[in-house]
Amino acid sequence: MIILYGIPGTATTAPHMVLEELGVAYELVLVERDDDGVSTGPAAFLAASPFGKVPALSIDGLVLTESAACCLQLADAHPEAGLLPPVGSSERALAMRWLMTLTNTVQPAYLRFFYSERYTTEPAGVAAVKAAAIAELTELRDHIGKELGAGPFLQGDRFTIADVYLAMLSSWSTDMAEAAGWWLVPSIAAHYDAVLSRPGSRRAVEAEGGSLSTAG
Amino acid sequence: MIILYGIPGTATTAPHMVLEELGVAYELVLVERDDDGVSTGPAAFLAASPFGKVPALSIDGLVLTESAACCLQLADAHPEAGLLPPVGSSERALAMRWLMTLTNTVQPAYLRFFYSERYTTEPAGVAAVKAAAIAELTELRDHIGKELGAGPFLQGDRFTIADVYLAMLSSWSTDMAEAAGWWLVPSIAAHYDAVLSRPGSRRAVEAEGGSLSTAG
Repeated sequence: MIILYGIPGTATTAPHMVLEELGVAYELVLVERDDDGVSTGPAAFLAASPFGKVPALSIDGLVLTESAACCLQLADAHPEAGLLPPVGSSERALAMRWLMTLTNTVQPAYLRFFYSERYTTEPAGVAAVKAAAIAELTELRDHIGKELGAGPFLQGDRFTIADVYLAMLSSWSTDMAEAAGWWLVPSIAAHYDAVLSRPGSRRAVEAEGGSLSTAG
Repeated sequence: MIILYGIPGTATTAPHMVLEELGVAYELVLVERDDDGVSTGPAAFLAASPFGKVPALSIDGLVLTESAACCLQLADAHPEAGLLPPVGSSERALAMRWLMTLTNTVQPAYLRFFYSERYTTEPAGVAAVKAAAIAELTELRDHIGKELGAGPFLQGDRFTIADVYLAMLSSWSTDMAEAAGWWLVPSIAAHYDAVLSRPGSRRAVEAEGGSLSTAG
């Protein structure tokens, strides 16, 4: 029995896409939040996620948090799906390098953009924190755009959970001012469209009401 | 042939500890930085690490960056050392959950403490960014201290690369004002001492001139 606790359009999307890629049975349970963005339920989620951060994933009683750790465990529990290269291989190491960069550098920069007020103790300093986050996200975007090269995926023709993660993160930039949009970089737009052309990933994004293509 | 490119007292320490835990042959090559903290060499490192971030790890021609990805690949390439539970197991998933929290939440909070000026476009706002980082690091410290419980490691008696990572990060707090020190929490101090009681981890920290015990 697999239950994914989360909220559409958040870091929930990546494990949601992985679940649909795997085609396993699961239930998606929505996390409730109050007007201040504080998670208020359900109780099983609050017990699992110490700071109320989404998502949480329950797999036969194992309760995980951390979107990237959820994706990784799902991929590792289903090696036949090939969502990660074999453990110990160079290709695996490079996929994990990408996953780490995405979760420890790109994702925190987005958090500073979305929740700038958490990163300074001075209300007057919030705008400057947001401006720094946008500058970093633009630099990261241009770097990743170059690294993608001909793509379509981060490791060429090989699709991994790192691609799921990048597609989720690049879609978050649609909330930013247009000049900073990640899909302005052709290789990143092509990456998103390539991921969304996969029926599993597409089903999850569609269920969450997300963008099905960079054109729309 | 394994080469670790890095700088003592940085995120280099974790893969350095893992290399010593494994007892494999490797060479440690120091990265040079100018007075502004910009990496200036050696050339092989600069080619490997797009933003000059340390560490980088070269394993028989595979070049990795991201401290956590380096630790993970080393552990996965040497399963006999038991630095991670078996792939697909619940214990492995929990180790990866910890590693993700440490690299995508604790480490970024430290970066905002150490390099506060990078996180705002207003020089006058730097102190407030640093204050917010200290508040978050204190909250994270207290949470992890509780989660450690009786320890000594994050998963009880089982030692993993997540413990290496936590030991590295908790040692970074010695640069903070005393009230925010991570080793003020007894379970975190006991954790550091337990990790440093391991000959391999200890050799790496000693070679870098780091703290060999929370008492000293």
